[in-house]
Amino acid sequence: MALSEAALVERYFRACGAQRADVTLGVGDDAALLATPAGSDLVATTDTLVEGVHFPSGSPPAAIGHRSLAVNLSDLAAMGARPAWALLALTLPDADETWLVEFAEGLSALARTHNVALVGGDTTRGPLTVTVQLLGHVPHGTALTRSGAAPGDALFVSGTPGDAAAGLALEQRRLSAPPEARTYLRERFLWPTPRCALGERLRGYASACIDVSDGLLGDVAKLASASHAGAELSFTDLPVSEPLCAGVGEARARELALSGGDDYELCFAVHPHELARLLAELPPERWGYTRIGALRAAAGAVVVRDGTVMELAHPGYQHFS
Amino acid sequence: MALSEAALVERYFRACGAQRADVTLGVGDDAALLATPAGSDLVATTDTLVEGVHFPSGSPPAAIGHRSLAVNLSDLAAMGARPAWALLALTLPDADETWLVEFAEGLSALARTHNVALVGGDTTRGPLTVTVQLLGHVPHGTALTRSGAAPGDALFVSGTPGDAAAGLALEQRRLSAPPEARTYLRERFLWPTPRCALGERLRGYASACIDVSDGLLGDVAKLASASHAGAELSFTDLPVSEPLCAGVGEARARELALSGGDDYELCFAVHPHELARLLAELPPERWGYTRIGALRAAAGAVVVRDGTVMELAHPGYQHFS
Repeated sequence: MALSEAALVERYFRACGAQRADVTLGVGDDAALLATPAGSDLVATTDTLVEGVHFPSGSPPAAIGHRSLAVNLSDLAAMGARPAWALLALTLPDADETWLVEFAEGLSALARTHNVALVGGDTTRGPLTVTVQLLGHVPHGTALTRSGAAPGDALFVSGTPGDAAAGLALEQRRLSAPPEARTYLRERFLWPTPRCALGERLRGYASACIDVSDGLLGDVAKLASASHAGAELSFTDLPVSEPLCAGVGEARARELALSGGDDYELCFAVHPHELARLLAELPPERWGYTRIGALRAAAGAVVVRDGTVMELAHPGYQHFS
Repeated sequence: MALSEAALVERYFRACGAQRADVTLGVGDDAALLATPAGSDLVATTDTLVEGVHFPSGSPPAAIGHRSLAVNLSDLAAMGARPAWALLALTLPDADETWLVEFAEGLSALARTHNVALVGGDTTRGPLTVTVQLLGHVPHGTALTRSGAAPGDALFVSGTPGDAAAGLALEQRRLSAPPEARTYLRERFLWPTPRCALGERLRGYASACIDVSDGLLGDVAKLASASHAGAELSFTDLPVSEPLCAGVGEARARELALSGGDDYELCFAVHPHELARLLAELPPERWGYTRIGALRAAAGAVVVRDGTVMELAHPGYQHFS
């Protein structure tokens, strides 16, 4: 096949994602032109996926396309921002059309779900690497950050962390599980669900928020440290899914919830004065979040079980360590 | 060495580039928060550099850092935009501190020159790949695009295209040249100069503009096609540098000016009614640009020498072909 970069972009990415009226000029010029809403702050993030590092070689191309946007949507959710525009930098060993069709479909479907337009990008030849840059906005001065929490604030997490780490272990045949659990956990790794609606709704309730991508305990520690505080989590309060417990047992499930990566859930802090309003206006059972602990004055993030601080061997996921 | 991603970001990239008052929140949270100026359009672009594809293995790290931003600055220059904020997605085989220090210095120096703040990014482990996303702005409705030109418009190019292609050939020992020419051409490849000031000044003069990165003739064809027109270039009017002529001879120099990549010059069109004002207010000898031809009604981009259309074997640079 001889497919030029221009033909490739034209064929697979020009109509990718949502169509938005605020895109003055999209894919096909030297840069995109975008109209930002008055009274808002621009929010910008980028994340890279490398084959063999962030997803196993041979992963379904649609899942890679989905993930490349999902991980960035999760970052914007953690800021309480509304996503709007994405740029895609795609490095490919060769222009395999079947792969590209499926990749673009996976990316486009999630982009349409969240009303994100693909407005530009770059395709190059090289080892499979996908970088998405995502832009969005929040009403001026209302963004959630990691640094706004204080000792005494309650800590919550959305969803059931640990599932994705087990799903990856299943993908890599490092774990076995009953068939039903296997299907669920594998899906949770391959098709992460960024909590965009929750993130936006948390503006005005949460004092701080972080995207749980490198392991809950490590990410809690980052939020606490940015807020010049520490955190104490309750082991038995950690939400774990039934399939995860079926696959690895309940105790190991909670350990995976603390240390596993790739969850793309939100962890957020709420001041005690705001708790009643949060629980009434965003009911946990409807919005899918669980109280897991609290901020404290002493630095560091610890996990308590039966009144005792646990010794945990497994820190959050780290590149270059 | 055991250098965590957080430590790496903290050490090398937190203070990278310019400090800007419109960065509400920079490196270190889930996303950056930026204040866009009222009355402006946001301009966004991204470009990826892959080792062995966009620069030879073993290139000076500072030159890679410089280039990763320069290629994006050039895109914004082609839109007439003012750059403001960059995000860096850096994939590295390992965390070599010497490499990182030099890379960050090369990136930071060019960023400070153009008042660009590094506001976020992602560092991952994998084959050396550098993706920069650059954001900037233009007064609403004034951006230059590829599509605004018409038959009869004069065509110009900045600088002396072809130098960088010869510099790359020298780097790869595919070419030899006298020592002085070698130094100049090698520098022109390693340290491209994005034409940001010229791009901004061209607003209100140019009818269309494109960044010359994949070979002048191919990029002229893109501008012409986007403007629903064709183009005719004059071979003998193509600006070529003395070192390039010294290295490869004058005829081959002009061929390289047409087909070589990595120039990062601007090619722009100007309506005949605007010509006198352009030449008076932006003197070519001061701003470093040359008239090379004109748009025409017939599709395609051709080069004319001694009244005859030349046959050229070498199209612009193409990935995936």
